[in-house]
Amino acid sequence: MERVYAQEVGQHIDEVVKVQGFVENIRNSKAMAFIVLKDITGKIQITLEKEPNPQLAEIVDTITQDSVITVSGKAVKNEYVKMGGIEILPDEILVESIANALPIVRKDIPATKKKQAVERSSIDQRIDYRWIDLRTDENQLMFKAQTVLVNALRQYLLKKNFIEIHTPKLIGAASESGADVFEVKYFDRKAYLAQSPQFYKQMAMAAGFERIFECGPVFRAEKSFTSKHTTEFTGFDLEFSYITSFRDVMKMEEELLKAALTEVKAAYGDQIQELFGKEVIVPETPFPVVKLRDLYDALEKEFGYSVPESEKGDLTTEAEKLSYEWVKKHYNHEFLFVTDYDAEKRAFYHMRDENGVPQGYDLIWRGVEITTGAQREHRYDVLKKQAQEKGLDKDVEFYLEFFAYGCPPHGGFGIGVDRLTMLLLGLPIKEAMFIFRGPTRLTP
Amino acid sequence: MERVYAQEVGQHIDEVVKVQGFVENIRNSKAMAFIVLKDITGKIQITLEKEPNPQLAEIVDTITQDSVITVSGKAVKNEYVKMGGIEILPDEILVESIANALPIVRKDIPATKKKQAVERSSIDQRIDYRWIDLRTDENQLMFKAQTVLVNALRQYLLKKNFIEIHTPKLIGAASESGADVFEVKYFDRKAYLAQSPQFYKQMAMAAGFERIFECGPVFRAEKSFTSKHTTEFTGFDLEFSYITSFRDVMKMEEELLKAALTEVKAAYGDQIQELFGKEVIVPETPFPVVKLRDLYDALEKEFGYSVPESEKGDLTTEAEKLSYEWVKKHYNHEFLFVTDYDAEKRAFYHMRDENGVPQGYDLIWRGVEITTGAQREHRYDVLKKQAQEKGLDKDVEFYLEFFAYGCPPHGGFGIGVDRLTMLLLGLPIKEAMFIFRGPTRLTP
Repeated sequence: MERVYAQEVGQHIDEVVKVQGFVENIRNSKAMAFIVLKDITGKIQITLEKEPNPQLAEIVDTITQDSVITVSGKAVKNEYVKMGGIEILPDEILVESIANALPIVRKDIPATKKKQAVERSSIDQRIDYRWIDLRTDENQLMFKAQTVLVNALRQYLLKKNFIEIHTPKLIGAASESGADVFEVKYFDRKAYLAQSPQFYKQMAMAAGFERIFECGPVFRAEKSFTSKHTTEFTGFDLEFSYITSFRDVMKMEEELLKAALTEVKAAYGDQIQELFGKEVIVPETPFPVVKLRDLYDALEKEFGYSVPESEKGDLTTEAEKLSYEWVKKHYNHEFLFVTDYDAEKRAFYHMRDENGVPQGYDLIWRGVEITTGAQREHRYDVLKKQAQEKGLDKDVEFYLEFFAYGCPPHGGFGIGVDRLTMLLLGLPIKEAMFIFRGPTRLTP
Repeated sequence: MERVYAQEVGQHIDEVVKVQGFVENIRNSKAMAFIVLKDITGKIQITLEKEPNPQLAEIVDTITQDSVITVSGKAVKNEYVKMGGIEILPDEILVESIANALPIVRKDIPATKKKQAVERSSIDQRIDYRWIDLRTDENQLMFKAQTVLVNALRQYLLKKNFIEIHTPKLIGAASESGADVFEVKYFDRKAYLAQSPQFYKQMAMAAGFERIFECGPVFRAEKSFTSKHTTEFTGFDLEFSYITSFRDVMKMEEELLKAALTEVKAAYGDQIQELFGKEVIVPETPFPVVKLRDLYDALEKEFGYSVPESEKGDLTTEAEKLSYEWVKKHYNHEFLFVTDYDAEKRAFYHMRDENGVPQGYDLIWRGVEITTGAQREHRYDVLKKQAQEKGLDKDVEFYLEFFAYGCPPHGGFGIGVDRLTMLLLGLPIKEAMFIFRGPTRLTP
């Protein structure tokens, strides 16, 4: 018999159906047993009258919470059943896998007359048993929504003639800044893990690929313990040629995010609202843009927030947060492009204008930076000079070569998929990753 | 002015257009200059009469092969132009990037009256300057086709309710076999690079995700120097629950590959035939299936190929190759499923039947293994015993835990994207990767 999803049982009333899933809940009394079976689509109640079904009753006695079972039986309507007014009267119950007593508490359990309240396990305890933690409706929705999000990003770009590439994560030289790189024992020498596909996506520009994207892991050997940092995350990076300014890059990004959020809202907007209490808002384009120093002025005026002049070349975490309030109030918008950072705070490969201003931006969503984008410096001599200024010319020698044999003007950006997910649902990063990785966390 | 692709210039005859690209070829004589400009879509000739355009003539004198230029001018028909009978008469030429003399020869250059033939650089020399090597029509086609291929895999699965996941590549314990794993310096301890997402995609099954896929890098610390091995490649992995046998896994894979090759053929079949001399064949389903020992019998009968009984539990490289001839002849097919390997040759997590036969398969395409698939052992006790038999139970303790709290029956497989690409186009692996990685190759 073909399996039927829990959500589809209602289409088979008075038929015999087969359902499969986890035992979300079991109430086993003398005369009756009630099982709530959960699969990836939803939940369905299995109702067993024990006396006429002694064999099934015996099986049900062995079943624990989170065990996996296959049930065949008649789907019937029953207005007393909370779960959609449908239940299955089982003819057959097959135990696929018995669950030991669960070592974590996924959600707060309120007190009852007989039992005290039980508090939800901490996120760190839950990550120890992440596969059990991921069984909740919220967590499964999170990865369904992320699937739609990432697919929408790709589809948008594929329609615009982007090529997908897969660049090496094992690299011969510590990339970009040289700091915060993981070292790998590579046979009899050292390799490093790529901090981003930056150099390689630019290599694709030098290769004449014109428009490329990549979605893959990036590695940061940072000892940060914040609600948004991790040592390994999924980056969504793109780069494209023949731009005339970094404004072309911003335009691409805002249209891309708008397209992706449109898809997410259509597919799961209601469920996200229901389970996470977050509205998925499709942003209007163009996104608001502000120069960094103008933003500092505005934040001082608006919130009395000020930083010393010496810190105004970069965005502080506090300013990042406040900028959300400011952009909501003045633009009724969740996104904010910030431009005109100080050159010393930006990577050497960002193009600069005649005044030395980096031709790039950060994008802030809901008060958190999700992207750095820029037009890149593609002129060999200028690029080399900028690398020298930062003392990096030796480290990036191989990269400079990409620009010595013809390279189109180009720009691009990268987005953290996990940050997008976390901000979409209003979670800390540990909750928003399939499995979190941090300085003290390498398991499971 | 909006840029027009080389391929689209024909739609703008007698209009002024702007094109941008690499200088594929330049002939600069006294009176005339002819530039072949190449972009990602094709090529277009720029024809300059020098006398009436002294400023442009001066610019053209600076242009070298592979420089990047922007040209504006009138598109006109000219039946003497080989390239589609169209040329552009430039009003403006802007040099975006000058190329130094190229350090590699991308293709054999036949002898002329004046010049000797020049031999193509070796693949290793070309990889040193991979970005220059990737500018050929063939290499750009390769990644366009790979983009279609990988996208088709994903779209097929998304339609079947698969969820995309991103699993950690940094892991706390050497996975699977413990051998051939790269070690990473992870702050004050050791981490390892995942050899495959195997354990984590199974974790997703224990999490009730039911159907998942992942496309990402996998790492193998193997000192192999063959035409198909690499230390880092892109794996396309999937896993799904509630199967009844490994035959369900095989069915999923054959339908998936059929769908993907259908898309590739439709998009680029003709170009692949033209540039690589390879026909893209959409396979019929079901694919032929043979038991390993029956295959050895057939190869002995057919080709006089025999191996000692002790080697018949696994497929030799030679048998793999011969199997292609055999399956073509007997089934007129390029794919072959081989089943019934010896348990000692298969991973401990493959389910076995009552006779101890692993419930899995290898898939051979054009004589090369592209997949190992199987139903997995999801029963904790049996799995633990199988791990113990291979002496792995300590190493995989964390993995065994995935099965102690309820886990559906499931199976899956992984495909190497680079191997697929290489076999599709008839290339060695070094030619088929964006950038190859081997035991002695970490650059560029």
